[in-house]
Amino acid sequence: MSKEKEKEKGSKAVATAISPTRTEDYPEWYQQVVKAADLAELSPARGCMVIKPWGYGIWENIQKILDKRFKETGHQNAYFPLFIPKSFLEKEAEHVEGFAKECAVVTHHRLEKGPDGGLVPAGPLSEPYIVRPTSETIIGAMFAKWIRSYRDLPLLINQWANVVRWEMRTRLFLRTTEFLWQEGHTVHATAEDAREETLRMLDVYTDFCEGSLAIPIVRGEKTESERFPGAVNTYSIEPMMQDRKALQGGTSHFLGQNFAKASEIKYLDQAGAEQFAWTTSWGVSTRLIGALVMSHADDNGLILPPRVAPTHIIIMPMVHKVGTEEKVMEYCNSLANELRAKIYAGREVEVHIDRRDLRGGEKMWSWIKKGAPICMEIGPRDVDAGAVFFYRRDQEPGKKANMPRAEFVAKVGEILEDIQGALFRRANNFMMENTRLIDCKEEFYAFFTPKNAEKPEIHGGYALTHWSGESSVEAKIKEDLNVTIRCIPFVDERSPIRALLEGDRAPAVCPFTGKASRGRVLFAKAY
Amino acid sequence: MSKEKEKEKGSKAVATAISPTRTEDYPEWYQQVVKAADLAELSPARGCMVIKPWGYGIWENIQKILDKRFKETGHQNAYFPLFIPKSFLEKEAEHVEGFAKECAVVTHHRLEKGPDGGLVPAGPLSEPYIVRPTSETIIGAMFAKWIRSYRDLPLLINQWANVVRWEMRTRLFLRTTEFLWQEGHTVHATAEDAREETLRMLDVYTDFCEGSLAIPIVRGEKTESERFPGAVNTYSIEPMMQDRKALQGGTSHFLGQNFAKASEIKYLDQAGAEQFAWTTSWGVSTRLIGALVMSHADDNGLILPPRVAPTHIIIMPMVHKVGTEEKVMEYCNSLANELRAKIYAGREVEVHIDRRDLRGGEKMWSWIKKGAPICMEIGPRDVDAGAVFFYRRDQEPGKKANMPRAEFVAKVGEILEDIQGALFRRANNFMMENTRLIDCKEEFYAFFTPKNAEKPEIHGGYALTHWSGESSVEAKIKEDLNVTIRCIPFVDERSPIRALLEGDRAPAVCPFTGKASRGRVLFAKAY
Repeated sequence: MSKEKEKEKGSKAVATAISPTRTEDYPEWYQQVVKAADLAELSPARGCMVIKPWGYGIWENIQKILDKRFKETGHQNAYFPLFIPKSFLEKEAEHVEGFAKECAVVTHHRLEKGPDGGLVPAGPLSEPYIVRPTSETIIGAMFAKWIRSYRDLPLLINQWANVVRWEMRTRLFLRTTEFLWQEGHTVHATAEDAREETLRMLDVYTDFCEGSLAIPIVRGEKTESERFPGAVNTYSIEPMMQDRKALQGGTSHFLGQNFAKASEIKYLDQAGAEQFAWTTSWGVSTRLIGALVMSHADDNGLILPPRVAPTHIIIMPMVHKVGTEEKVMEYCNSLANELRAKIYAGREVEVHIDRRDLRGGEKMWSWIKKGAPICMEIGPRDVDAGAVFFYRRDQEPGKKANMPRAEFVAKVGEILEDIQGALFRRANNFMMENTRLIDCKEEFYAFFTPKNAEKPEIHGGYALTHWSGESSVEAKIKEDLNVTIRCIPFVDERSPIRALLEGDRAPAVCPFTGKASRGRVLFAKAY
Repeated sequence: MSKEKEKEKGSKAVATAISPTRTEDYPEWYQQVVKAADLAELSPARGCMVIKPWGYGIWENIQKILDKRFKETGHQNAYFPLFIPKSFLEKEAEHVEGFAKECAVVTHHRLEKGPDGGLVPAGPLSEPYIVRPTSETIIGAMFAKWIRSYRDLPLLINQWANVVRWEMRTRLFLRTTEFLWQEGHTVHATAEDAREETLRMLDVYTDFCEGSLAIPIVRGEKTESERFPGAVNTYSIEPMMQDRKALQGGTSHFLGQNFAKASEIKYLDQAGAEQFAWTTSWGVSTRLIGALVMSHADDNGLILPPRVAPTHIIIMPMVHKVGTEEKVMEYCNSLANELRAKIYAGREVEVHIDRRDLRGGEKMWSWIKKGAPICMEIGPRDVDAGAVFFYRRDQEPGKKANMPRAEFVAKVGEILEDIQGALFRRANNFMMENTRLIDCKEEFYAFFTPKNAEKPEIHGGYALTHWSGESSVEAKIKEDLNVTIRCIPFVDERSPIRALLEGDRAPAVCPFTGKASRGRVLFAKAY
């Protein structure tokens, strides 16, 4: 098939690579993008997912970038047990309350032949084990042994692990029974140090989401009703998805002395007196891959920010014309090697030459759906011209460009960074266009009420609204609209919502109660 | 304290850093080295270990090096569920037989208040889940969905994960209920391709152990009685520990069509006919850290091969003399940065400046016990002389060297590689000194019988002996001596035992039965 025919075929398919589209059925569109990009699928173990190589490649990049930042901020990795004895989970009252309802319980340690010949659980455990839903209690027990004096502090530990929270309604990446994450756990001599750590790691997450995932972040503190079970303060990052709902992308907790007291984490201070320590914990998970999909994908499939794309550039050799294969392949191989010698964002430019025996259009579309940042078609004419013919995934599929090979190689880092920047700006514009200051209850209710009853997921977006601070107000709004306070936002120089608040002269009054407000909070529907 | 006093103190402590010594009590020596090096400890979850930062740092290096090799040999990482439905484990008869006796069984999905107020398991599962002891069955089920035609083959997947095998007698790293590992799972169109993959990965493991862990390897095929449950052929790497016992360091399995038939992994061949595929699996685990300890540690603690050491060089600034701190620290910092700019074995030279408030001797000994390859003491006189004063962990603690700073920086890679090489040679000499061709039953029994009844662990080592091929002979020897056939060794150009066999003119007769033998096999006691 000639390149012309393929391009024609390609452009015909543009409108329908993912069906339904975002506006037709957003939740189903999400599932179809995950499937078309070959990121993950559900497994025979209820609610557990299989992360396929393209999805896992994204996770590996997330891990590498974050792990480097964790180490630069003084943390060391360690590994703690998968199993938590039931009595440990019970040590912190709020904590067990939060996790007991949805946990995998190990009760036996072998299988043996039952009366009907099949295998049945045998060897009952004297104390059941819980598969970790989070590790504060078991890590706390170890920390209590390790810490003797102020010299052992701060203790800054991170763990990369799988965790299990038994979920009844699962969605790939967003909510699964098992997921992969990192959990940081730190111990400090003073509340001030622990608070500083909590906010430092929130900033690490914010930097990562904005800088590497190209996802703009509103960050702030959770209200009491949304706090981590056992925490004194919980902070979160709250990006907006393309259906205008918020997704909690990561949390950082100041745990005060709650877990130190539950686990007896004590130290001798410089005066020789015994003190309870102060702890923090913080985590992000494979949920970020769901955020990535819902931030950047379009009706043709995934769009990957180059900084976390498993492969930056796909080269598709067009070798159907008799007698051209050798020269085209030689050109593609040497081009790939030249590109691989370049460094983009601290990583070698990753190039894949796709030699699968597929028609060109089908092959190209498979990479569009997977969201590879740049796809190239290289045929004999490109070789003769010393050029590359390529397509940027952040632009329309019909828009392909020619460039002299040497120029492309020289500029490859710049082009990738341009894609990265374009994705961030697009997502940021979307969030800002759908974020409003709302000071009147009726407007607030209208903002969150779908215009079209058939598409209940389409609504206003983020509302920055004053709030009296009362949990009863939160509860009522949640009941009426399924809208919650995502956070009490930070409004500092790096906050995207700062500009919105600059001309804000509205009185600090809660529109729901008429009472005084200490400031605007971020209301939204959420995942 | 002056440097002289510290050195004196240091040399006094030489004989006793680890107590007991290897000859006094080898098993207890092992536990004490793991403890003194701060690698890991047991947790409150029975048989599960906590891998501490220094131990986990070794595992991170093992992962990085192997992961790179797996990718270079065409494999991609993915992630599969922690939980295996009981019915999946039952699909392959030998397989379930092998793992049912020691597995963690999840039977409930929440905890609720029981009659006495405590939490009890609730929400029983209709089918129990097994926490994966290995993943052939669940991965096989996914592969069956993914593979349609010969075009999808080979499918080359690896997973980094935790697994659980309920162990009654546990030893840190060597045998724990939960451990970390990688498991490769591949699918091929032909038996030949699958066999080739099985041996390719055995070679990857051999290269890694010899090249990165500095552990010499005898590799070969397992006899039927030691095969992986469900495999057609199992191959293993069998290094010798310092108590002359073998440790199975990794295995690679040719699974034939057993798991393909159990999981219905089929493909359409080029003629359009449906065929069962051929599969392999292969794995190494955190057990390798146990092998590392038992190969290289001495009576002063761990000795780490530089290629997997979390830190290559420890700099201890000696700043006790008034008015010297600033210049010493400046020197140490700039020295560290110069060293960090060097690359050793594909990784930046990792330098840690230890500023803990400890006496010099204590500080130095903490790093000797942890096995850091090079420790430096830098005081004002070294600064004035533009020199470094250092100690190589592969040499005696008393043996310290002075070197001009510039020379050390220039040669650092060479020095590290010299340490790496010295460790390999020492381990290889030890294995060769304790490996013998034995052709007589009495000599064989004497070789494996401890000379001293109080130290049953001290015996001969590896015996290369002819064997009739009968399982009954294996069983008798196991019963009499607790000695097993570790493998039917490969004797090719890379096998360390090749030299021993060069002059071998002994008749190919099994000394236990007088029957004909197809070749010598490797007998040893084993972990």
